[in-house]
Amino acid sequence: MGRHLRRGRQRPRPVPRCHPGAARQVQGGLNSTGGGPRPPHVPPTTPRRENRVGTPPKENHMSKIGFVGLGIMGTPMAAHLIAAGHQLFLYDLRPPKAELTDKGAVACASGKEVAEKSDIVFVMVPDTPDVGKALFSEAGIAAGLSKGKIVVDMSSISPIETKEYAARVEALGCEYLDAPVSGGEVGARQASLTIMVGGKQAVFDTVKPLFELMGKNITLVGGTAAGQTCKVANQIIVALTIEAVGEALLFAARAGADPAKVRQALMGGFANSRILELHGDRMVKRTFDPGFRIELHQKDLNLALSAAKKMGLSLPNTATAQELFNACAAHGGSTWDHSGMVKALELLANFEIGQTPKS
Amino acid sequence: MGRHLRRGRQRPRPVPRCHPGAARQVQGGLNSTGGGPRPPHVPPTTPRRENRVGTPPKENHMSKIGFVGLGIMGTPMAAHLIAAGHQLFLYDLRPPKAELTDKGAVACASGKEVAEKSDIVFVMVPDTPDVGKALFSEAGIAAGLSKGKIVVDMSSISPIETKEYAARVEALGCEYLDAPVSGGEVGARQASLTIMVGGKQAVFDTVKPLFELMGKNITLVGGTAAGQTCKVANQIIVALTIEAVGEALLFAARAGADPAKVRQALMGGFANSRILELHGDRMVKRTFDPGFRIELHQKDLNLALSAAKKMGLSLPNTATAQELFNACAAHGGSTWDHSGMVKALELLANFEIGQTPKS
Amino acid sequence: MGRHLRRGRQRPRPVPRCHPGAARQVQGGLNSTGGGPRPPHVPPTTPRRENRVGTPPKENHMSKIGFVGLGIMGTPMAAHLIAAGHQLFLYDLRPPKAELTDKGAVACASGKEVAEKSDIVFVMVPDTPDVGKALFSEAGIAAGLSKGKIVVDMSSISPIETKEYAARVEALGCEYLDAPVSGGEVGARQASLTIMVGGKQAVFDTVKPLFELMGKNITLVGGTAAGQTCKVANQIIVALTIEAVGEALLFAARAGADPAKVRQALMGGFANSRILELHGDRMVKRTFDPGFRIELHQKDLNLALSAAKKMGLSLPNTATAQELFNACAAHGGSTWDHSGMVKALELLANFEIGQTPKS
Amino acid sequence: MGRHLRRGRQRPRPVPRCHPGAARQVQGGLNSTGGGPRPPHVPPTTPRRENRVGTPPKENHMSKIGFVGLGIMGTPMAAHLIAAGHQLFLYDLRPPKAELTDKGAVACASGKEVAEKSDIVFVMVPDTPDVGKALFSEAGIAAGLSKGKIVVDMSSISPIETKEYAARVEALGCEYLDAPVSGGEVGARQASLTIMVGGKQAVFDTVKPLFELMGKNITLVGGTAAGQTCKVANQIIVALTIEAVGEALLFAARAGADPAKVRQALMGGFANSRILELHGDRMVKRTFDPGFRIELHQKDLNLALSAAKKMGLSLPNTATAQELFNACAAHGGSTWDHSGMVKALELLANFEIGQTPKS
Repeated sequence: MGRHLRRGRQRPRPVPRCHPGAARQVQGGLNSTGGGPRPPHVPPTTPRRENRVGTPPKENHMSKIGFVGLGIMGTPMAAHLIAAGHQLFLYDLRPPKAELTDKGAVACASGKEVAEKSDIVFVMVPDTPDVGKALFSEAGIAAGLSKGKIVVDMSSISPIETKEYAARVEALGCEYLDAPVSGGEVGARQASLTIMVGGKQAVFDTVKPLFELMGKNITLVGGTAAGQTCKVANQIIVALTIEAVGEALLFAARAGADPAKVRQALMGGFANSRILELHGDRMVKRTFDPGFRIELHQKDLNLALSAAKKMGLSLPNTATAQELFNACAAHGGSTWDHSGMVKALELLANFEIGQTPKS
Repeated sequence: MGRHLRRGRQRPRPVPRCHPGAARQVQGGLNSTGGGPRPPHVPPTTPRRENRVGTPPKENHMSKIGFVGLGIMGTPMAAHLIAAGHQLFLYDLRPPKAELTDKGAVACASGKEVAEKSDIVFVMVPDTPDVGKALFSEAGIAAGLSKGKIVVDMSSISPIETKEYAARVEALGCEYLDAPVSGGEVGARQASLTIMVGGKQAVFDTVKPLFELMGKNITLVGGTAAGQTCKVANQIIVALTIEAVGEALLFAARAGADPAKVRQALMGGFANSRILELHGDRMVKRTFDPGFRIELHQKDLNLALSAAKKMGLSLPNTATAQELFNACAAHGGSTWDHSGMVKALELLANFEIGQTPKS
Repeated sequence: MGRHLRRGRQRPRPVPRCHPGAARQVQGGLNSTGGGPRPPHVPPTTPRRENRVGTPPKENHMSKIGFVGLGIMGTPMAAHLIAAGHQLFLYDLRPPKAELTDKGAVACASGKEVAEKSDIVFVMVPDTPDVGKALFSEAGIAAGLSKGKIVVDMSSISPIETKEYAARVEALGCEYLDAPVSGGEVGARQASLTIMVGGKQAVFDTVKPLFELMGKNITLVGGTAAGQTCKVANQIIVALTIEAVGEALLFAARAGADPAKVRQALMGGFANSRILELHGDRMVKRTFDPGFRIELHQKDLNLALSAAKKMGLSLPNTATAQELFNACAAHGGSTWDHSGMVKALELLANFEIGQTPKS
Repeated sequence: MGRHLRRGRQRPRPVPRCHPGAARQVQGGLNSTGGGPRPPHVPPTTPRRENRVGTPPKENHMSKIGFVGLGIMGTPMAAHLIAAGHQLFLYDLRPPKAELTDKGAVACASGKEVAEKSDIVFVMVPDTPDVGKALFSEAGIAAGLSKGKIVVDMSSISPIETKEYAARVEALGCEYLDAPVSGGEVGARQASLTIMVGGKQAVFDTVKPLFELMGKNITLVGGTAAGQTCKVANQIIVALTIEAVGEALLFAARAGADPAKVRQALMGGFANSRILELHGDRMVKRTFDPGFRIELHQKDLNLALSAAKKMGLSLPNTATAQELFNACAAHGGSTWDHSGMVKALELLANFEIGQTPKS
């Protein structure tokens, strides 16, 4: 890809590549990753540290970046890009926060205007149809795109629709990456998001320096939609491991063992997981404030089950976990932390972790 | 405890109940542990290192220890006790291996004889009824027990029957610990087993130095049967996390992502677990040699489901995982590694991780 | 309701009631049903028998009826209405069959035109969004409705969206019934469909004579959307009973009993059902030609599971049945009869009903 | 059968093995049945009605019949045999009821004594181990058997153990039938039990006249254990159809339809079943008094799941139904009618059939 840069003519050159610094940056990126995913412990790149201290490089040709969708995730993510000295063009249904515009970001009237003014457009909205509207509504992003621009959808949406959206964007001579994140609001504020990317290696390499301003552990997992697929896989494992820990700790407590000691003992062996450590602790301590809301995890499992239906996959335990989430919702738990799934099991057992069994 | 050994006088044998020294020793035990489990990172005790270099202390008053059940687990476990200089009395249906008797362990004619000659009797047999026979058959251990002796069942069996077995042993004026292990044959050979113990603190403290010769990460998780309960909880989590990783990696592969890269990306986030690292890797690499055999995990899930039925617990995903193991068995997989559970999901999907999807 | 007719001012009078014949007809309808559902054995009403012998009444003021959606279900249903002497106005994306227009039905250019020319408009299209388009697209039915007209949706769609569609139609001063059917193509041809209706009693009474031209066992099960809800409930029971019969006959066959004899023995007891008789026979005889296609049943279970998610219901076995249908689809079974669900169970068991077990 | 008895030549007594007549009788038996099961609608035999009026034939060569297990099922079943003029020898842990001994039945000291005095021994006890004890304990039936006698186990037990029990009985030169029943206490009193038989045709033909004194719809479904297998299949379907009706009626009620009307509408179509009629009605009327107790159905599903584990069958919905029964038990429902399984679903939904939904 370094070669590509040198004989850049072949493809319109995303701005960061237009100056030596950029080349080095990308070069560095390539070397450090060797094309593979970057291990979590790797320290932030040099330019990044610069950005941290808030001293944007003097060059007047930093990237022009669009950001559509400025909610609790999008706002801090955009802020990190601004802090790195990039010129941002913003659009959301509600006007963007002053914390962004005060630092020089420009509020636009539509996604179309954002796309006209930017080289790379990030999208961060709630659900599949929202991305569809943001891209393809009358004054949407697609209407403002021109050859060589890049659309990066960081929302968590359907892998199936993602393939269709990417095809329509590429048909305009543009590039598309799907790059959903995990790590939540905290990860967004701390620029520590895990970013799972689907698309072309070259496009990934171009956008990677910007991803590094928003997250750690950034991986290109495959072609178009692979990022969304990876995010869904992540949500399947998280939901089913919560369910597993719930069944196990409830079993232990109901049988008369001390669930806190059982959790501690299990952390020493094959049963150990991030979920046992964090969500297992919440089940024992009975703290079910999000964290990650059940209603959001229901949406993600719905993506899994809908895609599974289309592909002819059986996901028996994902299907059951969804039904247990439904039960939580029926008991007012839509906004509980997803570790609250254990409450559906406790309901059936007529017993709560923390109780002492009579019999 | 190193101190205790050196001025061994105080403690000729680990049956403190029988003499004044006991009180102090137990006291000390209680203080030293503070009633809480010992954290996994604690280094091996002094005498343990001694044992490692194979120089058993000269004192002629080491413990007299019985060991019933000398299969692939029991034999190496007993060997560690012998290496520490303890006098062992052995019984199994088949005569014990020469590697044990050559080092001075005594083969006995029955569990009864073992119990008559020992202060502490360890049991390590396959299943719940085997423990029942070992303890209560005509020439069984119980027939040889006398007041103050200790029975330690290290088999993995039903928590329900364990309560009954313990009660019958305690009715003879003896003590009972249930202390199942995880870590398998390798853990037994390397003395690195995780040991989950149920019973009285004082009895645990007495036997703990012997546990430390066989394993690491030794936890008293509660009263009688809590060890077995903890082991069952462990097996629930392991089975359901394998199932979760199977659904997720199969989803990713079927949707066209690279399962190896997806696994690597997921290891950076909340979805990470020992199972994703080890068993996830086996699913991607298609290596299904045990490891831990499906037929053994079926036995463990059966313990979970039977106890759940007795206690009025719903374990929906454990129940489903068992049905998937049944399917593996139907396809000749009883002796596959338990990560082979993914093959039942692949069978339904008509697609294998590693294939490339046509559509 | 007769009273309502006399002081008709209060509500726009659906056309069939504008002449004595209509009143009698409706009257008759009321008496014969007594407001409750009509038992299946009740003989067809007088006008119906007339229709059977194909001699439409001479009156020139029969109802003007619209029919949108003329596929394998809609065409024979519309034909029965024509045969009864009603004037039909038809619309479908593809031009309606000659067998309809030859008998005097009028093909229209849009749903709008159909609605303008008709007093009652029937809709019979594949899925929820299709009904949305048929009703509310630019040249859709709603655009042609005027006060007092009746829309009857006989498609099988989401109860949730149905409430929204009904509200939008009623906001135009019109009436709405949801009236999905079961009985399939055969039932449509033989005018023996089961019709499950949701809406107002008075509107039901008005339309009932027309329903009686298309089906038997016609029940008003509740208010708006209750018909769709009832149809979903029907599809839940059918799918889960097929699954139940599949598990049972496979169990019997695998255990070495004769599945044909077992089925016969079970038909004598509490296990008996239409499904055991019909679908159980298909499983034994290995005839999996539709019948009712798996892909259609998947759509219906998806309606069940989506609505359950919205309402906070857990439907564990419906969720599992859907995953088994997915597995059938993965093996090319989208077009198998839904009794083919047993093949997913057989796949897991590595054994087919009809085989003789080795062990 | 009385006729047979009077022209007794053909068939002096139902223990043909003991004398030349046997061969002919078996021949006849074979011809008469044509090897196929008797259709359910066949009217009771003439002698049966005689028996009803309680006038046993005078002949002194009636069968000598043993009956072990005289609980709520066994007592009325034995009474029908006595009423038909047979000489009964009884054994149970508790002394048999006077209503039996007053009519000339003889109470014995053990199963051994019963077997010594009888040609055919019926067993009707609660569970698999009870049959094992009744047959093979020291003073058990096997100890009293001699060549040519017949053991008929009418208990509902494991098909797997049944094969073992049959083999041990046949090793003594005797015959074995497994003949579990459905129909419950009422069926036992009214001699209307459904009897599902496994074993040899000739033995079945010999015992059939006695079965006809206790039940209707008597079917030989296959070889040894096929009766037990068929009973398990029956219980699978009954449990899963209850679950299906529960999901469907709960869905309908929660969505705002009238569950009573929905049930009535569904009874007209493919969703109809004995369970929808009877158990569906109990769910709507909220009457959960047995009927058939949940704890008994749990035992039966446990037979299904244990055998499935041994055979390598996946029974996903049976497994889930068992977990739902566990939940009922946790809420005090062990003695509810099995239709009470719906309460576990209602618990999850936070909504009961019969409530009116707020939203």
